[in-house]
Amino acid sequence: MTSDPIRLGVVGLGRAFMLMLPTFRADPRVALVAAAAPRAASRKAFEKEFGGYTYETIEDLCADTSVEAIYVATPHQMHRDHVVAAARAGKHILVDKPLAISLDDGTAMVKACRDAGVHLIVGPSHSFDGPVVQAKCLIDEGAIGAVHMINTWNFTDFLYRPRRLEELDTKQGGGVVFSQGAHQIDIVRLLAGGRGRNVTAMTGQWDPRRPTEGAYAALMSFESGAFAAFTYSGYAHFDSDEWMEWIGELGHLKDPAQYGGARRALATIASAREEAALKTARTFGAGAEPSMPDHHEHFGPIIVSGDRGDLRLTPQGVHVYGDEARTFHPAAPVDVPRSEVAKALFDAVRCGRSPAQTGAWGLASLEVCHAILQSAETGLPVNLRHQVSVTGEEGPDDRS
Amino acid sequence: MTSDPIRLGVVGLGRAFMLMLPTFRADPRVALVAAAAPRAASRKAFEKEFGGYTYETIEDLCADTSVEAIYVATPHQMHRDHVVAAARAGKHILVDKPLAISLDDGTAMVKACRDAGVHLIVGPSHSFDGPVVQAKCLIDEGAIGAVHMINTWNFTDFLYRPRRLEELDTKQGGGVVFSQGAHQIDIVRLLAGGRGRNVTAMTGQWDPRRPTEGAYAALMSFESGAFAAFTYSGYAHFDSDEWMEWIGELGHLKDPAQYGGARRALATIASAREEAALKTARTFGAGAEPSMPDHHEHFGPIIVSGDRGDLRLTPQGVHVYGDEARTFHPAAPVDVPRSEVAKALFDAVRCGRSPAQTGAWGLASLEVCHAILQSAETGLPVNLRHQVSVTGEEGPDDRS
Ligand SMILES: NC(=O)c1ccc[n+]([C@@H]2O[C@H](COP(=O)([O-])OP(=O)(O)OC[C@H]3O[C@@H](n4cnc5c(N)ncnc54)[C@H](O)[C@@H]3O)[C@@H](O)[C@H]2O)c1
Ligand SMILES: NC(=O)c1ccc[n+]([C@@H]2O[C@H](COP(=O)([O-])OP(=O)(O)OC[C@H]3O[C@@H](n4cnc5c(N)ncnc54)[C@H](O)[C@@H]3O)[C@@H](O)[C@H]2O)c1
Repeated sequence: MTSDPIRLGVVGLGRAFMLMLPTFRADPRVALVAAAAPRAASRKAFEKEFGGYTYETIEDLCADTSVEAIYVATPHQMHRDHVVAAARAGKHILVDKPLAISLDDGTAMVKACRDAGVHLIVGPSHSFDGPVVQAKCLIDEGAIGAVHMINTWNFTDFLYRPRRLEELDTKQGGGVVFSQGAHQIDIVRLLAGGRGRNVTAMTGQWDPRRPTEGAYAALMSFESGAFAAFTYSGYAHFDSDEWMEWIGELGHLKDPAQYGGARRALATIASAREEAALKTARTFGAGAEPSMPDHHEHFGPIIVSGDRGDLRLTPQGVHVYGDEARTFHPAAPVDVPRSEVAKALFDAVRCGRSPAQTGAWGLASLEVCHAILQSAETGLPVNLRHQVSVTGEEGPDDRS
Repeated sequence: MTSDPIRLGVVGLGRAFMLMLPTFRADPRVALVAAAAPRAASRKAFEKEFGGYTYETIEDLCADTSVEAIYVATPHQMHRDHVVAAARAGKHILVDKPLAISLDDGTAMVKACRDAGVHLIVGPSHSFDGPVVQAKCLIDEGAIGAVHMINTWNFTDFLYRPRRLEELDTKQGGGVVFSQGAHQIDIVRLLAGGRGRNVTAMTGQWDPRRPTEGAYAALMSFESGAFAAFTYSGYAHFDSDEWMEWIGELGHLKDPAQYGGARRALATIASAREEAALKTARTFGAGAEPSMPDHHEHFGPIIVSGDRGDLRLTPQGVHVYGDEARTFHPAAPVDVPRSEVAKALFDAVRCGRSPAQTGAWGLASLEVCHAILQSAETGLPVNLRHQVSVTGEEGPDDRS
């Protein structure tokens, strides 16, 4: 019984679900048994591939007693309602990042899950990436001594990929701070121990046709005394995957000759409606599915500076630069992509072992997203109050 | 007459002078005619190679009427006295970075030179590097539109190279903020237009045996609306020259197999006195001279994010990543290393054309060094008041 796969229902069969397909298809720890989605084509495709039941609404999905956990893969602004509904129905939950848009929503979600006694995991996020987990283990084993500083940066064309209208409106959770910051913050917090102290940041809104933050640079201090500097540009022409041996975010080899593809494709689109339709064309049952990756996923170059050495993360593993020698610790080959996420869900539901990326963790990362926006507005550092450690301990200032 | 080389006297025949030797030997725009140095061996070596006169004191050098400009290459804490003495004697001045340690000293130096009507240039610094100059030209030509963000970082073993005792004492100008920050700030300011608005930073003092700042991460906003994030670690085990095709700071190919060399060498040294002696062993007339570089100098990876494209600087030239295509603009081959510095001095003294890196410019960069230290201490952003543009215009808040 304890090794039975998690009987998982999904709400939202869009882009995020597509990216989890390889995992759901191949990981023995999860079995897709039901889905809720508004589009008939997606429901049909789901039934065809996975069997089980499909529904038009989250409520119907929640009423399905064969479902023991729900993966919430709907747009940010629906996360609260969908998570609370699932919690009330006694389902464990995997909610895609970010936890929510507002801290109030996030707090309510954490509370609803606590009250219902169900696990809430925020993921997938790139903090689950194999090499990040490996780096965390190396740090815990003392490979570089105390962590003092983390630097990471990611230059992508995020803002020029097809978007729904609300993805370009910060108030509705649009822009890179919520969608991409959530990854970077999760990684940095995981490697620095979790509890941030304060954040100073600057953001860029440089393209009036896409009026939301497309870039930021942030400086964050941690209770441990460590600090981190992290930059994201979704306006980038320079692609920092060049420093990741041309392996893309999702673990596929990239062809540098495809330079400028996102902007070129977008230039052929006449309206916001057409653009949203293009995004929908990448939905389950409609678009081409991503192929199996050869490498681990990543989120740009990451350097961890420690007392006795540094770490550099790559999609193939982790370089350890010590006082005397440098060694490379290859990551295990990618058998099932994102298997770390399936493992986290399984370990939580079957073994009662929570991952770092709980609801409270996701709330702490969401707080940093808001701090970035607020600091960019005021020009001042923002003190953090909702931080939790990797093992879930709350900071002295936590009021949740 | 106007094409005669500048008749240059040098004060300080140490490490900094050694690094300028290839320039002085080969650039037709400068002729070394005199030097002041306390060590007889250095003076003798100077006379042997360059002829001219040598002196024990700066005063005697200043009294030499054959000298029309003086290169001040003594330790930071002597810059003020030596620059003021040279200015009073009516000599033009090239002072090595940083301008000074305190802002008061820096202000007095700028004033002394203005009063005397002599040129004061702060250099060499890596803002003179060929590809930096090239990038600045590309920006001015509009290659990427308005500059929005600059990211740069440099991971070196700076703190573990042989040091004089005061180089490890912040109050005496020690640590990476004054010695290395000066380079990074000069570069960032040059590419962003010069006038900073404020700075937030965190610094690291992680090695009690070398009790000064060995690392920092800073976030800086500019009057233009651009912002910059820049990190330096002189504690690094990871060497960011790995991302510069293994070309080192001074333009030589590096051998990655020499990993950990600086720490290993230092571990064989018994005392601070022995360490200072080791540094002196790298002085002119005593130690091995650096060989001619094959490439331009650099100060770590630099990405400039603009409105219509990005720039990436390398020791071989500048990548321009545009909306449609990426192109590489190779730098002119290095004929004479640091010839940009000789050119700046010549253009100023012979043609009355000041470079960006005037005394007022150096004061503005020094202000940023202090802002980094102050912000790290207070946790707050520091507003800047001494900023000047690339063309020397002062900001609205300037009180100098
Ligand atoms: N972790 C990752 O790698 C990753 C990648 C992409 C997106 N995401 C996250 O996933 C979430 C969804 O983003 P996306 O890019 O997949 O958007 P999307 O628009 O591609 O997909 C959302 C899907 O939800 C469906 N939906 C809308 N309302 C619904 C409802 N009431 N009930 C059921 N389904 C409903 C839509 O039909 C659509 O198919 C976001 O929070 C985003 O941040 C995560
Ligand atoms: N731009 C660069 O690439 C670079 C590189 C190294 C140093 N520097 C700068 O150059 C300056 C000197 O640093 P360094 O590393 O060469 O130090 P150093 O100790 O190697 O050299 C300083 C020299 O000044 C001499 N000196 C001391 N007192 C003197 C006096 N009263 N009159 C004449 N000479 C005197 C010393 O004998 C010594 O040779 C510093 O400001 C440093 O920041 C710049």
